[in-house]
Amino acid sequence: MSLERLSLNTKTVNNWTLKEAVEGAAQAGLGAIGPWRDRVQEAGVTESAKMISDAGLRVSTLCRGGFLTAIDDDGLDDNRRALDEAAELGAPELVMVMGGIPDRDLIGARVRVSDRLADLVPYALERGVRIALEPLHPMFVADRAVISTLGQALAMAEPHPVEAVGVVVDTFHVWWDPDLEAQIKTAGERGRISSYQVCDWLVPMEADPLLSRGMMGDGVIDFATIGRWVEEAGYRGDVEVEIFNAAVWAADGDQVIGTMVERYRELIDAPGN
Amino acid sequence: MSLERLSLNTKTVNNWTLKEAVEGAAQAGLGAIGPWRDRVQEAGVTESAKMISDAGLRVSTLCRGGFLTAIDDDGLDDNRRALDEAAELGAPELVMVMGGIPDRDLIGARVRVSDRLADLVPYALERGVRIALEPLHPMFVADRAVISTLGQALAMAEPHPVEAVGVVVDTFHVWWDPDLEAQIKTAGERGRISSYQVCDWLVPMEADPLLSRGMMGDGVIDFATIGRWVEEAGYRGDVEVEIFNAAVWAADGDQVIGTMVERYRELIDAPGN
Repeated sequence: MSLERLSLNTKTVNNWTLKEAVEGAAQAGLGAIGPWRDRVQEAGVTESAKMISDAGLRVSTLCRGGFLTAIDDDGLDDNRRALDEAAELGAPELVMVMGGIPDRDLIGARVRVSDRLADLVPYALERGVRIALEPLHPMFVADRAVISTLGQALAMAEPHPVEAVGVVVDTFHVWWDPDLEAQIKTAGERGRISSYQVCDWLVPMEADPLLSRGMMGDGVIDFATIGRWVEEAGYRGDVEVEIFNAAVWAADGDQVIGTMVERYRELIDAPGN
Repeated sequence: MSLERLSLNTKTVNNWTLKEAVEGAAQAGLGAIGPWRDRVQEAGVTESAKMISDAGLRVSTLCRGGFLTAIDDDGLDDNRRALDEAAELGAPELVMVMGGIPDRDLIGARVRVSDRLADLVPYALERGVRIALEPLHPMFVADRAVISTLGQALAMAEPHPVEAVGVVVDTFHVWWDPDLEAQIKTAGERGRISSYQVCDWLVPMEADPLLSRGMMGDGVIDFATIGRWVEEAGYRGDVEVEIFNAAVWAADGDQVIGTMVERYRELIDAPGN
C-alpha cells in the first residue's frame, strides 16, 4: 500500500532538525511532512522549502499559528508572518490553535478569537493559505485552546470562505465527542476538512496531559470508525501523525517512523476500514 | 444570607466519617449534605438516615451509582441497591456516572448505558428516587464516563419521565462547553436539573486529573455566569460542593467548610450574581 497520504508531523520526532525529519520521512517513503514553525525558522524558510521539495515531499500543514486571546496584544503580526511562511513553504494549510484564557472570561476570549480571525482572513486569501482551526481537547481550554469541539470550529469557520478557513480533525482531541460523526459529515459536506491528524489516547493519562498522546494502537481510540467517517465525508488529503510523548521523543527517530508506518498500515489505511 | 441551599458533599471532607461530616455541616449552618455510598455503608443506611435527619439536614443527593458499561456484568443489582439506599436516606436524587470503556468500542458502551438505564427506570420510579445522570469532563471518557456533555445527558434522559431521570450540572465537568448556556436552559425548561455541583478548575492541572478539582475561587471558572444560567433556568435546589483534591483532603475539615461557606457567599450566592 502506498504511503503517499502519510505525513510526518515534526513534533513526532521532536529531537530532530528539519533536515533529519525530511530525510527520515523521504527514506521511509512518506508522501508529506508537517513541519512546526520553530524547525522551519531554525533552517530558514527558503531553505526549508527547497529541502522539502528536493526530497520529493509535499507539505501537509504548517504548525502553527493562533492564540489570539491576549488582551493587550492582538497577535495579528505574528500570524501574518506564519501565513507568509506557509505560503513560501507551499503549505496549503496553516494550523491554528486559539487560546487559552487570560482571565476568567471564557466567552470574551472566544469573541476576541472570532474578531481576530476575521481580521486575518483577507491576508490568508491573499497568500493562498487556508487557516485550519484546530479544536483541542476540552482539558486544554484554560491554558491553550478555547475551541473545544469540531462543531464549534465549524461555527467559527462558517462566516468565511471555504478557501480561507477550515478545521482540523485530530483524533486525540475529538474522539470522545458524542456528536463527532455528524460533525465530521458536516465538515466534509462544507469542504472544510483541512487536515486529518492521528494519534492515540493513552490510559492512564500522563501526568502532563500535553504529553499523553500516544502512537496509534497504544491507546483506546477506534481509528477504523473515525477513519471511516472521515473517508465518508470525502476527505482524501494527508493523514498526519503528530505525537507529543516523552517516550516517543526519547526513541530513535527512524524507529519511530518505522512503527508509525506499521501502525498506519494496520489501523488507518487497512482494507475494510 | 442563608446557607439553606448549600450542601456539603462528603467527598470534600474525604477523611471524615459520615458522623463527622454531618456534625460539621450542621454546625456551620448548612441546609444539606450529599453523602457518598461508602460513608453511608460504613455507618449503616438506617443509622445514616436518622443521623442526618436528627441534625436537621436534608440529603441533597446520594453519590453514586452507575458505570453500567461492563460487558460481562450488567451492574443492575448494585444500582438497585443504590436506589434502595437513596430511598431510605430520603435522597431525592441518585447521582450516576456512566463508564468507562472496557474496550475500544465507545459507541457500544454508550448503547449499553442507554439500555441498562431503561432497565433501571421502573425501579427508580417505584422507589421515588430520580436517577441523576452526571456528564463528566471529556478527559474521563476512557476510564470513567462515556457521558461527556450536558446535551448528551439530556438526550439520554429524554425518553424517560422527568421524575425518573435528571441531569447534574457540575461546573468542573461542563464549564468549557461552548453550548453550555443553551443546554442549561433546555435542562431547566424540561425540569431535568437534578443537582448543581460547584468546584473550580485548577491551572495547571494536578498530575492526577481526578484530583484537579479546586475550591471555588482557586481556579478559572466564572461562577457568576454559570450560576446565572442555572438560576435563569429555574433551578432552586441545593448547591453541592464536591472537591476531590489532595490538599483540601489534608486540611482540617472545619476549616475546609469555613472556606467553602466564605467562597459560596462571595462567588455563588452573591447579590448581583
